[in-house]
Parts: sequence; C-alpha cells; structure tokens
Amino acid sequence: MAKQWFPPIYWDGDAVALLDQRLLPHKEVVLRCTTPQQIVQAIKKMAIRGAPAVGVAGAMALALGARAIQAADTQTFHSKFVRLCHQVRNARPTGNNLSWAVERVYTVVAENGKEDVPTLRRLIWEMADTIRREDVEANLAIGSWGREIIPQGARILTYCNAGALATADYGTAVGVIRSAHESDPSVQVISCETRPFLQGSRLTVYELMKSGIPVTLVTDNAVGTLMQQKKIDVVVVGADRIAANGDTANKIGTYMVAVLAATHNIPFYVAAPRSTIDATLADGSLIPIEQRDPREVTHLNGRPMAPAGATAVNPAFDVTPAKYISGIITEVGIVRKPYGKTIRQALQA
Amino acid sequence: MAKQWFPPIYWDGDAVALLDQRLLPHKEVVLRCTTPQQIVQAIKKMAIRGAPAVGVAGAMALALGARAIQAADTQTFHSKFVRLCHQVRNARPTGNNLSWAVERVYTVVAENGKEDVPTLRRLIWEMADTIRREDVEANLAIGSWGREIIPQGARILTYCNAGALATADYGTAVGVIRSAHESDPSVQVISCETRPFLQGSRLTVYELMKSGIPVTLVTDNAVGTLMQQKKIDVVVVGADRIAANGDTANKIGTYMVAVLAATHNIPFYVAAPRSTIDATLADGSLIPIEQRDPREVTHLNGRPMAPAGATAVNPAFDVTPAKYISGIITEVGIVRKPYGKTIRQALQA
Repeated sequence: MAKQWFPPIYWDGDAVALLDQRLLPHKEVVLRCTTPQQIVQAIKKMAIRGAPAVGVAGAMALALGARAIQAADTQTFHSKFVRLCHQVRNARPTGNNLSWAVERVYTVVAENGKEDVPTLRRLIWEMADTIRREDVEANLAIGSWGREIIPQGARILTYCNAGALATADYGTAVGVIRSAHESDPSVQVISCETRPFLQGSRLTVYELMKSGIPVTLVTDNAVGTLMQQKKIDVVVVGADRIAANGDTANKIGTYMVAVLAATHNIPFYVAAPRSTIDATLADGSLIPIEQRDPREVTHLNGRPMAPAGATAVNPAFDVTPAKYISGIITEVGIVRKPYGKTIRQALQA
Repeated sequence: MAKQWFPPIYWDGDAVALLDQRLLPHKEVVLRCTTPQQIVQAIKKMAIRGAPAVGVAGAMALALGARAIQAADTQTFHSKFVRLCHQVRNARPTGNNLSWAVERVYTVVAENGKEDVPTLRRLIWEMADTIRREDVEANLAIGSWGREIIPQGARILTYCNAGALATADYGTAVGVIRSAHESDPSVQVISCETRPFLQGSRLTVYELMKSGIPVTLVTDNAVGTLMQQKKIDVVVVGADRIAANGDTANKIGTYMVAVLAATHNIPFYVAAPRSTIDATLADGSLIPIEQRDPREVTHLNGRPMAPAGATAVNPAFDVTPAKYISGIITEVGIVRKPYGKTIRQALQA
C-alpha cells in the first residue's frame, strides 16, 4: 500500500480520473473516463461510491458530456443536455447528492438561456468544478465543527466508508475523525466491515491506515457486544439522504448501529454536507431504497458462498429515524432536535 | 447439491465420520477420524461446530480414545483417560455441551471403578452413543414443544446455524422450524449470513433448501430494516451456553438480533437442549467467550479483504441478557421468566 494519497476523483486533462474502489485495498487502479456514460457505469458498478463522491462524479459527467454534445444552437444543446441530465441522475436512486448536483449544474443552463453553446460548456465545466471544490471545503468545515463531539481519547465507531473515498476528498464522518485525531492523537477508530460490499474493511481501514489513525476492524454483528462491554464512546456515520424531519438513509446496517447506540446510551452522530438534505421529503419513509443484485450477498469476488439457487435480498440502504440521531454535523454547524426547524435553518444559513 | 440427507456425525465402523462443514455447501466431504486428536482438531478448526454437535463429537472422541489407551489395569486406564478428558474438553471454551458430555462420559468411569478395562471401554462407548442418540431425541422434543410459538404463516428469522449440522441431527432452532413447517408449509425462514464464518449462508440455507423449507438469505446488518418493515414475525436461535439466570451465549451477533427484536416487539426465542445449561454460572458475565483468529475477519477463503497488516478483533460469541429472551425451548418444555426458577425446574424435570 503506497503511502501517497490522491483524491478519489479529479480532472485529468480532458478526462475524469476515478480511483476504482472495487479493487481497493489491493490495487490502486485509476479509471480514466472520457464519456459521461463511462462515469454512469462507474457509479452503477460502484467503482466510485459514497453519496457526495457520486454527486461530484455526476457533475463532472455532465461537464464531460456538455463538451461532446453536437449542437449548432442553444436550443438543440439545451434539449440534448436535459436528456443527459436524466441519464446521469438515474445512475443510483438513494443518495441525494447526485440529483442535487445535476439540478445545480442544470440551473446554470436554465439561467443562461441566451448564452452561446461554447459559453454554456464553459459555465457547466466551471460549475462542476465548483461542486467538486466546495465538497472538499464542506468536509473540512464538517471536520472542524465535529471535533467538539469527540471526547478525549474516544473510541469512535464508524460504519461503511464516509471517508475521503466517499467524497471529493477528506471525508464526512472520517473528516470528523481526521480533525479530532489532529488535535488528539489518542483517539481510536472501530470500523465495521459493512457487508456485503465491505466498504469498511476495504476502504475505511485502508484510508485510516494511510493516514496513520489507529483502526480496528470488526464484523457488523459485533457492534452490540462492543457497546455492551463499554468499548465504544461515540458513533459517527455518513448519510446518503436526509429527509426534512432528520430521518436519515445510509448504508444498510446503520439503523442497527443507531438502535444499539440508543440502547447503550452512546451518542450517535451523522456527518453530511447540506447537499445530502432532501427538504422535499417530509420523512424517511419517502426515501427510495436501492435494491441491489442478490449476488452481492450470495457471492464474494465472483465465488459463491451460499448454495446454488439460494434466494437472497440485498437492500443497499436503511433509514434511521431522527429520534436516534444525537446531531447532524453539517458544514454550517451541528444541528440538533427538533430537526424540522434546525434543518430548515441550516439550509438557509 | 445431493438431495440425500446424512447426519453430520456418525459411527463408521471403528471410526467417527464427520461431514466437513468448512467445505459446505459446495462439497460434501466426510472426514473419517480414527483418533480423538483428529476429532479435537476438527472441533478447533470448525470442521464440526454447533454446541450440541461439538458435545456429541467430544463424547465420541472419548470412546475412540478409550479403545486405544494402553493400560494393563483400571488404575492406569483411569489416569490416562482423565488426561484425554482434559484434552477433549479444552477443544473450544464457550459451548457448554462439550464439558457436559465429557463430564457425563467421565462419570461412567468414576462410577465403575471396579470394572476391568474392556468393560470400561464398552461402557464409555455406550455412553457416547447414548449422548448422540439422546441429542436427536431432545431436538425432536424441542421441535415439538417449539411449534406452538410459531404463528400461522410466520416469517421466522434464525441466526447462524442451529440446525441438524449443529447437533447430532434435526437441529434445535431449525428443529423448531422443521416441526412448524411440517404442520404449516406456509412458514418461511429468513437466515442471516452470520459473519465471519457464514454459517447462515453456507449451512442453514443449505439445510433448509435440502429440506424444502423456503429460505431467504440476508446480511446480518439487514435485520434492523426487515424488522422495521414488519417482515419478521418471530426469532428463533440456538445457544452455546445458558447461565442459571437465563443469560445466553450464542454466536456473535445474536445479542444485536435480540436488541432489535425487543425494539420492534418481536418475540425472541432460544432453542436448546438442557445440556446447554450451565447452572454453575450465576449469570452470563461469567461465560468464557472464545476469541478466534482475526484472519477469519480480514480474510475469506484465504484471500485478504482488508489491507495487509490491518488489526481486527474476532469474538466468536456474545451474551444476550435474559430480559431479551421470550422463552427457552428445551426438550422438557418452554421455560419462561423468571428463569432463575424455571431453569432449575427444567433441570430437575
């Protein structure tokens, strides 16, 4: 494992470069995408994942696509670009950041209807890059706000990967951990492996080891016993979509961790940029939950674990009711109950 | 997958035959053990696992070993046999049935101190076979008692493998499921994969598919969302050791399932023969918890999942406090709270 760090997604000349997260931690292979379709496939196949990273990738896919659109006039460009926006937005359903990013890039076109095609292409590219840069800035701010909820010497449990690899860089939940570790090197991390895709073992442990932050890997089902034994002080996780009332969709198993944290009186925090908030949804029951291929459960690295013909279900996310969440760490501060009010305020800040 | 069923452990002439559970569901390979040491290794390496099955295997190991002991007189035989008993009893620490079985076989020797060596060998062999046969009978009785706690058309969640493969045959929790399915073919099973050893995907799904009982595989971390969505009606699990107050050690993650069941008002039952009860322990905090090789978490089938050098912990069991247990289904009936009293009564029944 090389010590050098590079961001999970970046411009590489006229292309978008993605670190292929399916091959981590064993191989650091960069996918060079020259078409938006390649990026959509990379999102669907989870070469890049993590709601904020997927949002950034979507914006960059639109910038790439805008360059390639054949259009003599703004009208033609506009209609072709709208089709592209739909295609990109539909790559994955649960995370909010992708539709948020597509919407934001589209608005540039909608608001500059009189500009010529080359100008629109430039404005789209600039907006995509703004989204990328602002995501890093948001994470640095989340890290800075979040530091206060991490006790001295805390043993922090995190779930899935809400790290640099799930964002444009630095990470949300892992950003809070990085920031806490900077001022208090005695903090430690417990990372859940996060079945079936093993983002914990493969990505979070990899990131934290590269960053020199002590981390211990556990199976997801060991969270209860660790909490029972008082070996966890605080939980910080990321989010894929947050409803107006604070209900939060995140990687399957997050709800289990939240219930266990509540049972053991352990604070449970969500760290996420405001782009994760979907104020159009009154509560979490309205969040669409992606059902992925059951083969991700029955097979591992293409090898079957279960008997041939076994039936499995593979919901990729679950919803944690707001009542279980001690606070949501955003780039404008930590919002707390009652979330209906504080989330609205955070969006206006 | 052959449709034919054979028990996980049986006498094969002068040897003990074990179905190697590490290779299931892909290969049905029988290990033919001719020495007690081979059985001890099979237990340690989890070729055979499940507390009742390990107890039966331990008893059969003693029978094999007793045949091979070189002793001219009862005194020499006795001291060599005691050494063998220690060796077998220490194969794995958490399950109670192994020490219970060793104790029971040893008692034959202790109570027949005047018999000659050939007679002792025969009595030991007979006791080992009694333990094996009684385990099957206990499971049939558990299944019969347990039927009443399974509602019509229930969706039953089970964890790990408390099936035929975890016993001499038929199963404890799976025995209850078999019995319920016999009178109501509309019951369905949800099997948790049970990381890191995947007893759920590899063994429970295999067993239930062979038996024609509908089963759906899920990752352990999906239990919360399934319960939240009202897709589970009842939970039945096995046990490795039950303390005098009802606290129950079982496969890592059982505690998580119990907390989630309580949170969602879903009945949570333990199915286990009385040989699982350790009345010498006042409560679950005294149950020794086996810590297994972290490589079982960081690697799968010898292939690394996590980065090289990653730290992991691998507690093999956890303890579910009695307050979370709706009832314990034994071969003499279902015992309920207050367990201190009802468990004592069950042991005397």
